[in-house]
Amino acid sequence: MISAAEIKFIQSLRLKKHRDKHNMFVAEGEKIVSELLASELQIQTVYGLQSWTERYGRHVPAGIEFRQTGIRQLERISSHKTPNQVLAIVNKPNYIITEEIFNDNLVLILDRIQDPGNLGTIIRTADWFGVRHIICSDGTADVFNPKVIQASMGSFIRVKTYFSKPDKVLRDLGGKIPVYGAFLEGKSLFKTSMHTPAILVIGNESQGVSSELVQYITQKLTIPPYVEGAAYDKAESLNASVAAGIIMAHFRMSELKNSKTTA
Amino acid sequence: MISAAEIKFIQSLRLKKHRDKHNMFVAEGEKIVSELLASELQIQTVYGLQSWTERYGRHVPAGIEFRQTGIRQLERISSHKTPNQVLAIVNKPNYIITEEIFNDNLVLILDRIQDPGNLGTIIRTADWFGVRHIICSDGTADVFNPKVIQASMGSFIRVKTYFSKPDKVLRDLGGKIPVYGAFLEGKSLFKTSMHTPAILVIGNESQGVSSELVQYITQKLTIPPYVEGAAYDKAESLNASVAAGIIMAHFRMSELKNSKTTA
Repeated sequence: MISAAEIKFIQSLRLKKHRDKHNMFVAEGEKIVSELLASELQIQTVYGLQSWTERYGRHVPAGIEFRQTGIRQLERISSHKTPNQVLAIVNKPNYIITEEIFNDNLVLILDRIQDPGNLGTIIRTADWFGVRHIICSDGTADVFNPKVIQASMGSFIRVKTYFSKPDKVLRDLGGKIPVYGAFLEGKSLFKTSMHTPAILVIGNESQGVSSELVQYITQKLTIPPYVEGAAYDKAESLNASVAAGIIMAHFRMSELKNSKTTA
Repeated sequence: MISAAEIKFIQSLRLKKHRDKHNMFVAEGEKIVSELLASELQIQTVYGLQSWTERYGRHVPAGIEFRQTGIRQLERISSHKTPNQVLAIVNKPNYIITEEIFNDNLVLILDRIQDPGNLGTIIRTADWFGVRHIICSDGTADVFNPKVIQASMGSFIRVKTYFSKPDKVLRDLGGKIPVYGAFLEGKSLFKTSMHTPAILVIGNESQGVSSELVQYITQKLTIPPYVEGAAYDKAESLNASVAAGIIMAHFRMSELKNSKTTA
């Protein structure tokens, strides 16, 4: 049995102000909760249906509160339309930026990425391409928003996200590392060989990279549209998470080619 | 004034069965409606706020019904949380697949892409990379779903989408054109130079390319994850629209390099 107060508390974590106040967030689904249980993140409570308990209940370590739950109650605490067996209340990790993270080949800076789906997808793509550190500006969606957690497909567990002022971070680095940025006008990505360690800045969905950050960009990059004759100039732009994915892929391909050239 | 029956009719178009029955769909927003008015698609009715009418009303051609609308009514007929000034009822185009479309460098086949956001984003990315033809299998989300229209950002106007049985299309083509497909195991994209004309198959978000289509694939492609040591094997996969974007970008980059080599 979950009390009404408990249900209300869990529901309150759908809002950032409550997540910030309690320093907790909600993660849902069999796969994500299994990965959380195997991770270093601190879980407070796991709410699981009987079906989940029978299969995984014994894997819940002693220090974590475990509550068996009926489907009706899971539906009330879940923010999914169709809740998936299990839900965990997790302590928000608080990672601190150190200079060392910039040695780790590629660091992403997200400059006011507003759409939670885009943010989650970028975290998922970063995970695929081995990008372990993402710095999020003020104005970027909250990583612990349920939609971000869902879109990231568990990748938020492996990719560290930092909340900071990117202009301060870039100023403190003092130009030691190349800073690439995605722009509508810049050098063609297809003609650029990229070198790591590096920083990649992805700007806001409609406004791009903010003026405070532009001064730190050492190489503006453009993903060239395919233009067949002059009539074809109407394509809107690329979705921010697709653009981020294309550039991260290009980093990895460049590395591969550079390593061959060196070898 | 819009009648209750009219409001009910427009709301009914949120469902595929009603869109199919009436052969109509709804498109919303200033930019999309402007682009629709300038396109070859047939608009039935435009519903605009006074603010929109003052600026654009005179651009509505004589054959199209135009209705000035109050904000309360626009809110009722809109499927957006915050409706954006104008909404159009549009006839669904009915494009027919001909052999000629396969001469047009790159054709996409979407094999049961279920998420409307993914479908809209793939259409938007196709537009950017000059892919004009997308064949959608049964089980792919409906292109005229309001979420797809919104995510495509107007690109559904320029990219032609066909509803067909991809296995029949591929069988009829009889191997005349290379068919690339995105797989978890295949040749590394980064080591593949791609040639057009070609077909690219993107499979379902969780199940990939279906078994009926696999036999027609002439080159399986993989976007290689970045593996640093053996511990790093947990990344879920890439989002389907990100994967499609990375491969389309690679097609265009390959073309650029091939044209240089030839020149």
